[in-house]
Amino acid sequence: GWARAVRGLLLDVSGVLYDSGADGGVPIAGSVEAVRRIKASGLKLRLCTNETQATRENFVKKLRGLGFDVSVAEVTAPAPAACHILKERGLRPHLLVHDDLVPEFAEIDKTNPNCVVLGDAAENFTYANLNEAFRVLIGMEKPVLISLGKGRYYKETDGLKLDVGAYMKALEYACDVQAEVVGKPSKRFFESALAEMGVPAEQAIMIGDDIVNDVGGAQQCGMRALQVRTGKYRPSDENHPDVKPDAYVNNLAEAVDIILQQL
Amino acid sequence: GWARAVRGLLLDVSGVLYDSGADGGVPIAGSVEAVRRIKASGLKLRLCTNETQATRENFVKKLRGLGFDVSVAEVTAPAPAACHILKERGLRPHLLVHDDLVPEFAEIDKTNPNCVVLGDAAENFTYANLNEAFRVLIGMEKPVLISLGKGRYYKETDGLKLDVGAYMKALEYACDVQAEVVGKPSKRFFESALAEMGVPAEQAIMIGDDIVNDVGGAQQCGMRALQVRTGKYRPSDENHPDVKPDAYVNNLAEAVDIILQQL
Repeated sequence: GWARAVRGLLLDVSGVLYDSGADGGVPIAGSVEAVRRIKASGLKLRLCTNETQATRENFVKKLRGLGFDVSVAEVTAPAPAACHILKERGLRPHLLVHDDLVPEFAEIDKTNPNCVVLGDAAENFTYANLNEAFRVLIGMEKPVLISLGKGRYYKETDGLKLDVGAYMKALEYACDVQAEVVGKPSKRFFESALAEMGVPAEQAIMIGDDIVNDVGGAQQCGMRALQVRTGKYRPSDENHPDVKPDAYVNNLAEAVDIILQQL
Repeated sequence: GWARAVRGLLLDVSGVLYDSGADGGVPIAGSVEAVRRIKASGLKLRLCTNETQATRENFVKKLRGLGFDVSVAEVTAPAPAACHILKERGLRPHLLVHDDLVPEFAEIDKTNPNCVVLGDAAENFTYANLNEAFRVLIGMEKPVLISLGKGRYYKETDGLKLDVGAYMKALEYACDVQAEVVGKPSKRFFESALAEMGVPAEQAIMIGDDIVNDVGGAQQCGMRALQVRTGKYRPSDENHPDVKPDAYVNNLAEAVDIILQQL
């Protein structure tokens, strides 16, 4: 079955560990205990998230406050991955990101920008800020746009919100350029997470609620991938034209039960 | 030559009649006189504009203030064209447009919206307004998005600004829908302008500064089209991969000279 020969698990966070909402969210039933059982089993664990509204430190602080035994060193997130790319290529970003994400770029030279880094800027997605990011891009001989994810939208307690992908498309069209996406479902992002775990793709399972970004992305890297029926899961996902998970599970707890039984 | 057998001229406005800027803009040299000569010649005249930051009344008031002898009845603009479509199909719009355009929709029922009409909303392109338009769309069984143009960007005295097309792409991506574009280069828009003039396509010439939206769009309708070397014209337009004007002219005055000589 799909649970054979596993050495490491990659977990999406929002929709798998907890549901976001007022007061920072609530754990999904059984997930706190499931994370504890994964660690006790000796399996490698990696949180693989597209979160870009907080530093890893604050993100982990929130999760620990919800009862999860996790640490900053266990998190793969788009901003640090972007910093790696910026350093590697000598890029100096103009940032259009959430205020709370800015500290992740503290070490990066941001003078005289030669690229734009776009995250889920939320309230920072103003007309003025979008025009400014656009002008930086269109002023380059060959515009470089790095986008921390390409989600279409997400749900908060006060309603649906446009996600970073929508603003990415606006800038792509205006500048006639294609963004480089950092974060799920990019192959490089999953490969970094695997390298950080020290587990090859064929011995890893990704568990997520997003049929395209979690399941599809991980499978493209040679991993097995499960979709949980929590978070943004919708029954119509089971008829997705392109992506078919290796298995569906009701929630993280059920996945961990099955995986641990086969160890 | 290209100037034979003409009965009507369609003129783009910004970049052909005047350049926008502080104090509302300045006429392009020779254009005031050129419009007067067109009218004196007996040729039919139509202003064919994608302007969506003012009602036709205020738009014409500005042009008259610059010295142009034009009237509201001579203007083909996206908002009235959209109103026609809304009435025809029983659509009730949620408007995301410039404040100064709202009066064009005075006669339209806007209760319980079943579509979104998107214009160049400028300062109204806020995070809150974009999320609201998105929620209206995503709440429909089959989202209907009507966009007043699909321009990428334009220049104002304080710098380049993202145009309506960028925001259209953001909503298209988020809702997985294709917008219906009203205004140039839509075929229906040019056909309306021709019908209003009472001139068939083969006897009409479009004169504009935009290689794609003016020249390409008009040629798709069977008209001849000239590109002026004023406004947003760039020398690189003359190597455009898809669109080749019937002729280039330095400005509107030169085009009118040549056309009137052949009458």
